[in-house]
Amino acid sequence: MKPPRITGVTITPVAVLDPPLLNASGVHQPYQLRAVIELHTDAGITGLGEAYGDDPTLANLRAAAPVLEGLSVFDLNGLTARTATALGAAAPGSPTDLIGAASREKTIAQTVGALEVAFYDAQGKATGLRVCDVLGGAVREAVPYSAYLFYRWARHPQGATGPDYPDDDFGEALDPAGIVAQAKRLVDVYGFGSLKLKGGVFAPEEEAEAIAALHEAFPGRPLRLDPNANWSVETSLRVTPRLEGLLEYLEDPTGGNPGMARVAAGTSLPLATNMCVTSFAEIPEAVRLGSVSIVLSDHHYWGGMRASQRLAGLCATFGWGLSMHSNTHLGISLAAMTHLAAALPELTYACDTHSVWQREDVVRPGALVWSEGSLAVPAGPGLGVELDREALARLHQQYLDCGIRSRDDVSAMRLADPSWERRKPRF
Amino acid sequence: MKPPRITGVTITPVAVLDPPLLNASGVHQPYQLRAVIELHTDAGITGLGEAYGDDPTLANLRAAAPVLEGLSVFDLNGLTARTATALGAAAPGSPTDLIGAASREKTIAQTVGALEVAFYDAQGKATGLRVCDVLGGAVREAVPYSAYLFYRWARHPQGATGPDYPDDDFGEALDPAGIVAQAKRLVDVYGFGSLKLKGGVFAPEEEAEAIAALHEAFPGRPLRLDPNANWSVETSLRVTPRLEGLLEYLEDPTGGNPGMARVAAGTSLPLATNMCVTSFAEIPEAVRLGSVSIVLSDHHYWGGMRASQRLAGLCATFGWGLSMHSNTHLGISLAAMTHLAAALPELTYACDTHSVWQREDVVRPGALVWSEGSLAVPAGPGLGVELDREALARLHQQYLDCGIRSRDDVSAMRLADPSWERRKPRF
Repeated sequence: MKPPRITGVTITPVAVLDPPLLNASGVHQPYQLRAVIELHTDAGITGLGEAYGDDPTLANLRAAAPVLEGLSVFDLNGLTARTATALGAAAPGSPTDLIGAASREKTIAQTVGALEVAFYDAQGKATGLRVCDVLGGAVREAVPYSAYLFYRWARHPQGATGPDYPDDDFGEALDPAGIVAQAKRLVDVYGFGSLKLKGGVFAPEEEAEAIAALHEAFPGRPLRLDPNANWSVETSLRVTPRLEGLLEYLEDPTGGNPGMARVAAGTSLPLATNMCVTSFAEIPEAVRLGSVSIVLSDHHYWGGMRASQRLAGLCATFGWGLSMHSNTHLGISLAAMTHLAAALPELTYACDTHSVWQREDVVRPGALVWSEGSLAVPAGPGLGVELDREALARLHQQYLDCGIRSRDDVSAMRLADPSWERRKPRF
Repeated sequence: MKPPRITGVTITPVAVLDPPLLNASGVHQPYQLRAVIELHTDAGITGLGEAYGDDPTLANLRAAAPVLEGLSVFDLNGLTARTATALGAAAPGSPTDLIGAASREKTIAQTVGALEVAFYDAQGKATGLRVCDVLGGAVREAVPYSAYLFYRWARHPQGATGPDYPDDDFGEALDPAGIVAQAKRLVDVYGFGSLKLKGGVFAPEEEAEAIAALHEAFPGRPLRLDPNANWSVETSLRVTPRLEGLLEYLEDPTGGNPGMARVAAGTSLPLATNMCVTSFAEIPEAVRLGSVSIVLSDHHYWGGMRASQRLAGLCATFGWGLSMHSNTHLGISLAAMTHLAAALPELTYACDTHSVWQREDVVRPGALVWSEGSLAVPAGPGLGVELDREALARLHQQYLDCGIRSRDDVSAMRLADPSWERRKPRF
């Protein structure tokens, strides 16, 4: 085989409908942005990737794209080196405020992470292998995901959407009963074995009550709570006694490794993070302080699937568990997450996914099949998903029309409550 | 492409001539043992690997070989899982006393490390790619190695060999002048840019004089000294002032992470190791104690090339440098080391190799080309080396004839000095 060489990269931003999901930073906007990456090669093979769709991410991808021309799709070291050079010394803003202070390392990692998926997809297509097989082989043929529960409104606030905006039919969930009802629906449809509640929205005691209600409604099912660092250390230590025995892990109760270490020292709950350890540079401090015992990997910002495998090795080395983080994403990323998780022996928890909240996608239906809370590894070759060009065109038009260019949960929240202030920790 | 599946594994022990190289454990025997691995597949492709050739290693390889049948050569996770199962709970002896206490983890890593090279060679042959390209792409097309200098005798002691044993023509090297002469010859022939002296043989002050003599004879050329943990902490701290400013790093002056940490605290010399950090399980202690600042990777015992890449990521994460260790090896391992090193952006030092001391090989000449102290990455596909069947048969016969079944530098030394005792640290 002559290794396929890159002839060009197409980057298409899209916007997809998103429900009003509440979180520590406010509320999801009516549309979430993603970018679809098509890596064209001289072998006629196209590799697919998916990234955040905000302006800084698009700028980084567009800066990196031209320098990839001529590169073999197997040359992941070349991808990293050329991307780093193309991005220069700048450390532009991050697409999410969840992964701490922006840094050049993180910007390179996010850009490489997005493009690398397309490289792997092309490798798989060139060799006839699934991406999970290129990554070292599937240790599981179905990847368990957790139900991602959100406090939410039934519809977006007035002024956020036009009159034709199609709200979903989940209705609101603003208390323990609402969360349990939401969980029941998701478990009924998908069969999820684990449940995760996005917290940091209401008073910590209220959220602990929701966890207790889930525990009662789903006895024995692993539960997680993620306040997104919206609790102070003192608040965390006030609430953890109520959560002990109920959670398999508590995710980012408070911000930063020093604070997390103080919480860790005061509770028997394992602490997980996708906020205070989001890059390799942050690992030594976490090791030194003993701030976390589980890391949620995410190929989108750890630098790709290969970097996620390295993170997995690191977690195993330091006795940390490994789970997987999710931002809102579409089918290309879901396929990538599934192939990666399939090839990670170190994965010790069901992965997160926002999939259940997305009603639109850029991939053709049929490749991503849920069963008993798990997603079967797509058959491949490569990621095993195909672009739905009509959907891509429509969602790109939606991107052009919606006017959103960066995620802004704060402004979305202010439409409902003009006095709402971004404050962390809020509790 | 249908992924090639394994139909059988051939393991052939060989013995190769070896000169009387002195070291902390005694002296090299007249023959060193290696095992050649041939991984047969249903695609007609054969993957090559190379391992230690001692009895425990052969037993482990032979235990693992049958369970690999039917496995895809891309299924590295399957290789690890099946090998771990096949080896069971046992932690048989290690082929080298240089990597600390034996453990089940290390035994699995050594067995996987040997077999995995053959998997990668087969992957490369199946795809037409070089192993370095399968590993993520070459960041360098030539890999720098250091000259591996040894105190040595001109010939093996009486009783070690028969009258027909062909001694090499290097002659003895037992003092600074002898070491400088040896270095000049190796630099003349190979063009090495860095020089490493195997120490732990003579009084530390004598070895420091040899380093000083090398420094004078080769001004500006990076130097290393490796006493193989044959110095006490006190001795190390007595000698390091003489070595500061002369060495790029001091390798394993003393044994164990606590001792190394005490030496590290008392010298400005960077300390390197291939003895106190030889498995992932030993890394947390080294991080906690600050015992080392450079790790010498070795795919033979770290669990393969993929595991070595993980080690590289770990080193980068903790600010450690990365070099590469060598035991006596033949051309298959040299090719593997070179492909791996070519694909490691994190490699910060020239690699070690014993190659200059081997006059026999199992691979056909021509693939491994030295220039200016570096080895060009073999062109591939796969490792890019071919078995020389005639040489293999001859060296296997030499294995059968020589009677050596495990490395034993102590007994070899006692032939020259019956009163010689194994003691560590000796100084």
